Amino acid sequence: MPTAAVVIIGDEILSGKFEDANSPWLAQRCRGLGVDLIRIVTVPDVVDEIADEVRRCVDKADLVFTTGGVGPTHDDLTMAGIAQAFELPLHRHPELEALVRAYLGDRISDDALRMADVPAGSELLWDGDVRFPLVRVGSVHIFPGVPGLLRLKFDAVAHYFAGEPVRSRRVTTTRSEPAIAGPLRALQDRFPAVSIGSYPQFKQRPWTVTLTLDSRDPNELDACEASLRELLGDDITPEG
Amino acid sequence: MPTAAVVIIGDEILSGKFEDANSPWLAQRCRGLGVDLIRIVTVPDVVDEIADEVRRCVDKADLVFTTGGVGPTHDDLTMAGIAQAFELPLHRHPELEALVRAYLGDRISDDALRMADVPAGSELLWDGDVRFPLVRVGSVHIFPGVPGLLRLKFDAVAHYFAGEPVRSRRVTTTRSEPAIAGPLRALQDRFPAVSIGSYPQFKQRPWTVTLTLDSRDPNELDACEASLRELLGDDITPEG
Repeated sequence: MPTAAVVIIGDEILSGKFEDANSPWLAQRCRGLGVDLIRIVTVPDVVDEIADEVRRCVDKADLVFTTGGVGPTHDDLTMAGIAQAFELPLHRHPELEALVRAYLGDRISDDALRMADVPAGSELLWDGDVRFPLVRVGSVHIFPGVPGLLRLKFDAVAHYFAGEPVRSRRVTTTRSEPAIAGPLRALQDRFPAVSIGSYPQFKQRPWTVTLTLDSRDPNELDACEASLRELLGDDITPEG
Repeated sequence: MPTAAVVIIGDEILSGKFEDANSPWLAQRCRGLGVDLIRIVTVPDVVDEIADEVRRCVDKADLVFTTGGVGPTHDDLTMAGIAQAFELPLHRHPELEALVRAYLGDRISDDALRMADVPAGSELLWDGDVRFPLVRVGSVHIFPGVPGLLRLKFDAVAHYFAGEPVRSRRVTTTRSEPAIAGPLRALQDRFPAVSIGSYPQFKQRPWTVTLTLDSRDPNELDACEASLRELLGDDITPEG
């Protein structure tokens, strides 16, 4: 299955001025597509930091999705960071330049034309009903930070990424984590094809633990869930 | 000013099963405390990945906050990851062992006792009304993943971190980014002590751009805001 990493480029997220709406959405979409998201990193609007993290993510994951930093203003440094990550020059793409000039007419300016500057060798993906194509460099897909635009552009190219979705089960129990840790470990050892997660909540009584089972193997998932339910007996909450 | 990095340890965030409520909250709190958050990373429940990222964050930032992976179950691997990052052995801390034993009585088990295993040389911080102390290893502060517990524990030790808060201004304009990119760049060059951010929204008409000014120098901030307002003239929205 393809793996993915997300790089959020944004001082505004780190400084707490805006909340990151993109990485939760991308995590959900990856899940739905059967893409295994293995890393989410938020870095500042600094070329070296962007370059360093993009390089790391390219090494670790099959697909890299960046968000933010692609407009015309001084704080938009994503293209420069990605060019540096791949040791490629930035160049003005003729097709993008024509688009920007057509869109802005006589309001064109040097800064606006920066929107046509991409790492040499970038591909343009025209999938979907988009005014401006998605730029891809190797495995790195460069999305805007504005959530509505990101979603539109991501969904237009999502068909390139599809793997086999993970199936999930969820069982909630009133037993405590210390009480079930041993049997859970034994269950995990017995079902290596299932990933078992354990998440306590202490917000309201009774305290509960939500156990999640994730797998691409439906038979193992069924067997693991049956064993888990047997293990917990009557201590499963009604909605669990 | 102190810098900070946040490491979210959690398969459940990457898989989209739970939304990360901790990093937005920590970003806000860092902002309020005057701590410059420079990096947020979500890694899976894998010892090598935790170790690798914690080491990187220790190198980059003055303070590191980890969340998640500190319970008794098989998927709780934060202590092992941090021990590996510092090349320290895990050891069973006598004071923590006594706490766990007192709390669990005859329900004690090998897995439950893992909650007393911390990197050798860890400090215990007892600030606030906490049942279980915060564990600190060097600059790394190890918080639970459960949001309510994280907040309680963070606020109890926040007094160690305080710097001088950044002051912010925000002006929203109906001009477009391409139209203001040039003058904004000139403004940024004129006021290096102010960090200027530019965030367009295309969700509703009229499209607007929110410009944020951040600085620890109130005079520079005032002067920069005055220049910005003069630059935009009548194109400032009422709420901006």
